Amino acid sequence: MKNCVLLLLLLKLFISNVKSQIYSANWTDLNSRPNPGWYDEAKFGIFIHFGVYSVPAYTTHSYAEWYWYYLNNDNGTTQQWQNEHYGQQFRYQDFAPMFNCRFFDPDEWASIFQKSGAKYVVLTSKHHEGYTLWNSDQAWNWNSVQNGPGIDIVGELTNSVKKQGLHMGLYHSLYEWYNPLYLSDKASGSPPTQNDYVREVLSPQLRDIVLKYEPDIIWADGEWEQYSNYWNSTEFISWLYNESPVKDTVLVNDRWGKETRGVDGGFFTGGDHWQPGHLVSHKWENCETIGYSYGYDENEPATAYQNSTVLIQEFVETVACGGNFLLDVGPNAEGLIPNNMVDRLYDIGLFLSINGESIYGSSPWRIQNQTESIWFTTNSETGSIYAFCYYFSDDGIFEFNEIIGNENTVVELLGYKGNKPITVDVHKLKGIKLTVPFVSPSDYPPFIYVFKFINAN
Amino acid sequence: MKNCVLLLLLLKLFISNVKSQIYSANWTDLNSRPNPGWYDEAKFGIFIHFGVYSVPAYTTHSYAEWYWYYLNNDNGTTQQWQNEHYGQQFRYQDFAPMFNCRFFDPDEWASIFQKSGAKYVVLTSKHHEGYTLWNSDQAWNWNSVQNGPGIDIVGELTNSVKKQGLHMGLYHSLYEWYNPLYLSDKASGSPPTQNDYVREVLSPQLRDIVLKYEPDIIWADGEWEQYSNYWNSTEFISWLYNESPVKDTVLVNDRWGKETRGVDGGFFTGGDHWQPGHLVSHKWENCETIGYSYGYDENEPATAYQNSTVLIQEFVETVACGGNFLLDVGPNAEGLIPNNMVDRLYDIGLFLSINGESIYGSSPWRIQNQTESIWFTTNSETGSIYAFCYYFSDDGIFEFNEIIGNENTVVELLGYKGNKPITVDVHKLKGIKLTVPFVSPSDYPPFIYVFKFINAN
Amino acid sequence: MKNCVLLLLLLKLFISNVKSQIYSANWTDLNSRPNPGWYDEAKFGIFIHFGVYSVPAYTTHSYAEWYWYYLNNDNGTTQQWQNEHYGQQFRYQDFAPMFNCRFFDPDEWASIFQKSGAKYVVLTSKHHEGYTLWNSDQAWNWNSVQNGPGIDIVGELTNSVKKQGLHMGLYHSLYEWYNPLYLSDKASGSPPTQNDYVREVLSPQLRDIVLKYEPDIIWADGEWEQYSNYWNSTEFISWLYNESPVKDTVLVNDRWGKETRGVDGGFFTGGDHWQPGHLVSHKWENCETIGYSYGYDENEPATAYQNSTVLIQEFVETVACGGNFLLDVGPNAEGLIPNNMVDRLYDIGLFLSINGESIYGSSPWRIQNQTESIWFTTNSETGSIYAFCYYFSDDGIFEFNEIIGNENTVVELLGYKGNKPITVDVHKLKGIKLTVPFVSPSDYPPFIYVFKFINAN
Amino acid sequence: MKNCVLLLLLLKLFISNVKSQIYSANWTDLNSRPNPGWYDEAKFGIFIHFGVYSVPAYTTHSYAEWYWYYLNNDNGTTQQWQNEHYGQQFRYQDFAPMFNCRFFDPDEWASIFQKSGAKYVVLTSKHHEGYTLWNSDQAWNWNSVQNGPGIDIVGELTNSVKKQGLHMGLYHSLYEWYNPLYLSDKASGSPPTQNDYVREVLSPQLRDIVLKYEPDIIWADGEWEQYSNYWNSTEFISWLYNESPVKDTVLVNDRWGKETRGVDGGFFTGGDHWQPGHLVSHKWENCETIGYSYGYDENEPATAYQNSTVLIQEFVETVACGGNFLLDVGPNAEGLIPNNMVDRLYDIGLFLSINGESIYGSSPWRIQNQTESIWFTTNSETGSIYAFCYYFSDDGIFEFNEIIGNENTVVELLGYKGNKPITVDVHKLKGIKLTVPFVSPSDYPPFIYVFKFINAN
Repeated sequence: MKNCVLLLLLLKLFISNVKSQIYSANWTDLNSRPNPGWYDEAKFGIFIHFGVYSVPAYTTHSYAEWYWYYLNNDNGTTQQWQNEHYGQQFRYQDFAPMFNCRFFDPDEWASIFQKSGAKYVVLTSKHHEGYTLWNSDQAWNWNSVQNGPGIDIVGELTNSVKKQGLHMGLYHSLYEWYNPLYLSDKASGSPPTQNDYVREVLSPQLRDIVLKYEPDIIWADGEWEQYSNYWNSTEFISWLYNESPVKDTVLVNDRWGKETRGVDGGFFTGGDHWQPGHLVSHKWENCETIGYSYGYDENEPATAYQNSTVLIQEFVETVACGGNFLLDVGPNAEGLIPNNMVDRLYDIGLFLSINGESIYGSSPWRIQNQTESIWFTTNSETGSIYAFCYYFSDDGIFEFNEIIGNENTVVELLGYKGNKPITVDVHKLKGIKLTVPFVSPSDYPPFIYVFKFINAN
Repeated sequence: MKNCVLLLLLLKLFISNVKSQIYSANWTDLNSRPNPGWYDEAKFGIFIHFGVYSVPAYTTHSYAEWYWYYLNNDNGTTQQWQNEHYGQQFRYQDFAPMFNCRFFDPDEWASIFQKSGAKYVVLTSKHHEGYTLWNSDQAWNWNSVQNGPGIDIVGELTNSVKKQGLHMGLYHSLYEWYNPLYLSDKASGSPPTQNDYVREVLSPQLRDIVLKYEPDIIWADGEWEQYSNYWNSTEFISWLYNESPVKDTVLVNDRWGKETRGVDGGFFTGGDHWQPGHLVSHKWENCETIGYSYGYDENEPATAYQNSTVLIQEFVETVACGGNFLLDVGPNAEGLIPNNMVDRLYDIGLFLSINGESIYGSSPWRIQNQTESIWFTTNSETGSIYAFCYYFSDDGIFEFNEIIGNENTVVELLGYKGNKPITVDVHKLKGIKLTVPFVSPSDYPPFIYVFKFINAN
Repeated sequence: MKNCVLLLLLLKLFISNVKSQIYSANWTDLNSRPNPGWYDEAKFGIFIHFGVYSVPAYTTHSYAEWYWYYLNNDNGTTQQWQNEHYGQQFRYQDFAPMFNCRFFDPDEWASIFQKSGAKYVVLTSKHHEGYTLWNSDQAWNWNSVQNGPGIDIVGELTNSVKKQGLHMGLYHSLYEWYNPLYLSDKASGSPPTQNDYVREVLSPQLRDIVLKYEPDIIWADGEWEQYSNYWNSTEFISWLYNESPVKDTVLVNDRWGKETRGVDGGFFTGGDHWQPGHLVSHKWENCETIGYSYGYDENEPATAYQNSTVLIQEFVETVACGGNFLLDVGPNAEGLIPNNMVDRLYDIGLFLSINGESIYGSSPWRIQNQTESIWFTTNSETGSIYAFCYYFSDDGIFEFNEIIGNENTVVELLGYKGNKPITVDVHKLKGIKLTVPFVSPSDYPPFIYVFKFINAN
Repeated sequence: MKNCVLLLLLLKLFISNVKSQIYSANWTDLNSRPNPGWYDEAKFGIFIHFGVYSVPAYTTHSYAEWYWYYLNNDNGTTQQWQNEHYGQQFRYQDFAPMFNCRFFDPDEWASIFQKSGAKYVVLTSKHHEGYTLWNSDQAWNWNSVQNGPGIDIVGELTNSVKKQGLHMGLYHSLYEWYNPLYLSDKASGSPPTQNDYVREVLSPQLRDIVLKYEPDIIWADGEWEQYSNYWNSTEFISWLYNESPVKDTVLVNDRWGKETRGVDGGFFTGGDHWQPGHLVSHKWENCETIGYSYGYDENEPATAYQNSTVLIQEFVETVACGGNFLLDVGPNAEGLIPNNMVDRLYDIGLFLSINGESIYGSSPWRIQNQTESIWFTTNSETGSIYAFCYYFSDDGIFEFNEIIGNENTVVELLGYKGNKPITVDVHKLKGIKLTVPFVSPSDYPPFIYVFKFINAN
């Protein structure tokens, strides 16, 4: 009998555990779900903005992917430009057949991403224009299979990215500028008294991409005009966490309603290019661009693109403050990633091949930085602290005031090929002074200097 | 008490009368509604097939408006042609931006129709391709306002046609070859176990065109794959007859479900080019083409177009048998009606300017024809019988065996300008013999010879 | 001595005969050459205007083939239209790739011409735009083989036309609006002091088409800005008459210099649509259009096209006055002759199948016409006079005051199928009165009434 | 008498001097002309390949600017690709309207070139396709003013480049693959018995660009099929040197006939990418690419582009061996220089801003290099020798065996910011040993190490 009672108790415990795995459709419950571990370890992802806007690839404003919006909202500037180059009868929709993706090679893309050291990829399955990069029944004749390239871009890239061992995520815009169902909902009241758009378009699409492509991230956007209850966000995420085929691996961000950013959902994203500069306790992500525009802007000059060292510094600061770094590329209408962007990705890949242990799987340290040019991470796996120095000092002396060392403390400069040792001088209470020897400049690592402190706190 | 009974009886009668004005959503009820009178009087309408298929304007099969279907269903013949001329990456949807309607002038169209003597017009608001000629929220980015011309073709033509005093009707395809919602419904079972397409696309569209454009005809088509209950046909027609703004003037045809053609609905249409050759007691319509294709087929040679006399004969036989004649034109992608079609319409206009009283407002006569070349109508307004003779006899003698004349019988040849009288010889029981004098050939009417019998039966 | 004198006389005669076969490069000599007989017998030819202008097929002025000229010379009207439809960066030259001739079928064209009763065809080998319809080395990358269709249109049509037994002729514009060599010559002085254009472009081209295609007509145009000595016209024609492979069959027109029209060369052409209305003793040609424009003007309405009866009357009057009738068609950019033009050609073919003997091989009669509606020809082969009456008189009586008959005079109405004879009443000195019986209108010929007078003068 | 003799001698001297200024049209004479000094001082130029081939920007072979040639000469590979993407009716010429140069900004180009440190620019005024980048009367309708952009690219860029204080040069292809006049000449015999092409096209074009744009270099190419006497090369160069407006500043290269390369003309060019690796006594030029293709090849991956350090090393070796470095960029059809190319140019600009004195105005030294990684120049203006070391030695010791120093010898490392001096150890007879101190890696210059030897031989 006792055994039976015990068995029942165990069973109950088991059930309650299982039950604790169920996240109801409310933010409190959904927010309580821990992030799948792969994401925090990954640290570095590639963002891809790709769509009909990749054809004009033009803007006089901030973002080329907003071309259609500007066409109607900048007092005729963009319209005038379009008239001159395409004639007055030309409409934004007429760009779709020109989105030819002639040279699109998803394996090549995935290979570039793998070489950059990125561990995940986030592709715009649909941007605010409503054009989908897969054959969506809810975007009939306004998707990449039926207009333009005739390619299931989401599907092909997902396959290639997963083959490279990377995680695949999908960006999806909740709103669409011009979808008549959305416009009609919006016109119904504030907040809307109907949600035909969500029922007939958004919800089926979100489920469709999850079921077809099993992405590990759903990166929502375009949420700001409505509260999350209009978008049925909690219902979707609840389904995603409880029932979907990716319930164990998927993450979402925080753009699920005008009240949710920085409050509810998965990792926080802040605004575009968000880089807080201090520790953010909630997992967050910095979606950064190399140039300025997310979508390809053919006109951005070479000088508008940040160089590799600056990008690496932004990456480092992001990781030091607890964030992931999602770096954007904007392929062109032929399906090619511009080579100057690829150059930067390869440089970051080189940086990570030398310094990966200070980034992948790392955590923010006790403090994030000592000056604007010295930042820290720690890695529980190596048990080490990492200091990222942007400049080499004139005398080879580097002071780290906050690191507590001891007689066993060892310090390495990652990628250092010199044969003279680094002198470590541990201060009594706190602080370590390093004297890094002057050697041939070829013996130092490129970009920045990452010191690894073993047996230190 | 008796008064009460009477009162009750009267009340019941009144109610039943009122009730008879309400047409419930079942065929018995809907079929009981009499046709608004204008339609039978009109006799002659213009059919217009216009859409994305007007761009390739090509077929090796019967109908150019089926281009997209053939692209996928003729063992590669059409696809091969398209590859050669547009490249392999080209898709049917890519024709939409080329549907420019550059020279579209709805007033000019309406003027041509008016000169042809037509009393109504029926435009394809949507053909099987799903592309709509108005800004349909249910066909976002797949309509003439957002793709191609940027014109509300249904709206502009409706205005122009009504300004000319003609009735405007709208053709609407119930099914769409490739609408994913319809395909999904179709895949759900046979008959389908769901009707998302009807709920989300078809029904809103049908109501939309009625409310926006107030057409006097809804000309359904593409009904053959499903029963009318799938299409919600009776609900729609019931609403159309009872509540819509055109409830007093509108007619529908009989293509509302795979079981309805020739059975239920308004006027019967049979198959394309349907011409029974005998009296059909139910009001019907012959939708005929000048060449062979409904949609513009640029490649049809001059010899493929029926000449005006043949068209007039078909028209006459249709009216003689109780039908209306709906003659099709296929404008080109620039929005022009090919001139050889216009030539025919003007000839019919000339015929009607001479012989209109034998056609407009006429009814089938006791018999429809005497030979293949002599047909009859009667007109209650003029109280006359009309005999349409296709040939002039060698001796000027015309025998009409079935017409019963008397001493007051007078016979005229419409459009006859000769100064010698027609000799009328009335047979005793039945039959009239005419001796039409030989005069200058310029004094006879063109095309065919229409005799009007006054005071005859 | 006498013998010597005789011998010398004979020799002189012989020399003058031989000499008369050699046409030196001066107008007196060239004008003395008799026309090859086929041309005067042929009476009816088809003119074809086809080129890059067939793509826009647009004009607000007279002639669509002058589109490029108007683009630069109508105060921006045409340019504005082009900007709207093609964008501001679009240039006339950009139309060339759109000149696709996708459905061009030279055998079909030739068959249509043959059915029209035409005996020759004249194609624009080059119009004022300079674009050639054959692979001209002098128009590199500006011809139909290297731009647009990729077809040797001149060659393919020549083959097809000759296979049908018709004569082939080639129109060739002497000047080119924008050829830099011509513009440079023109700028050199008035008259020009150089003729690089003629030497490097025009002369090689003219010889090229003669040698490659052996045309029976060289139809010059665009001559008006320069005297014929600039164009080297007499040299070319001298070569054409004396040495070319077509020296025995070829004819030229009179547009060979600003001083030559109506004065020098072969047949006279007057201005476009030239129809003098009276006998012109020198052989001439009326180049007429069906609508108004020579090159295809897509916008010309059905009513702008002359009907078949009017065209036949113009044809008759032209022949009656000693001219040939060269009727123009303007194919579209896909290479199709618009069907309403084909309809007219077939009607003329029907007219000629009935009345050919009154046209082919006929000559002007003593007088050309009696009224505006009665015209005459005569035919030495049949020995008959033909009277063309446009209307059938009210009483069947036709008076021909100028015809002298006798007891053997017989009169027929061509195409008449009636069984009652025409009564011929010969006036004593001059004049014949016909009484044409009234019969069934089906027994009269269509279009107009052609009476044949046998044994009359 | 003596005076007379003296006078005669003086006269003779005067005449011979004057005569020495006149370069007759033979190679001996032309070769004797000294190069204008600016060219050897400039050392670095930018080559630009730009034309209709910039539109497809595609090749499976070496050079994208040869696209048209491959279209006809690679067993259908390129043709097949074109068919797939543009349809079978598409022809190379049809690319011209797509050469839109929409974003072409000549001032921006010139600014980029100036920042790269280049002192001259060479633009393809005409490549083998025959399409000219200026409005050439000899390439009517096949030039950038009349097809495509509608821009005088040669003129606009010349202005901008000169405004930046750089020299402007023009590449010009002597032959054209498909010019009918050239093909006809070629077919006339071997060698050709006629030279219509040269007389009517090439010679006028060469004079035209000289007179209109006053270039300081005429960079001939496409000379290999014919001897220079066919091309009239000596006549042209003689005119260029004696009479043209640029006679005092202009240079030509050596591609003027199949016998001239490396023998006659101005500077030698060898083959493409020519880099002899040893001193060439005659002035020469290395025309190098960053990637592989000269014309833009959109498909070249990032890895196909040489990095800045490698380019700088090639540059150094070229200069060390007496050559100029002409580095090619291939702008795209929109008129933009791809940003990854601009990145390299800016890096070279940075290199030159530090090390310019070792390059500009320098001469080859006694020996050119010591190893594959140490090269030399000397500069008469600074009186110094420069050693270019590609790597920093492990111990900071650099041995220069061939340099002869003395007690006054001073050595600097250009761009060195360290505060520790370089130790100079002069060997007795020959050779100098440098000990370069180890300092912070930030204190060394980027790319390579350039040592300046003052007071050494």
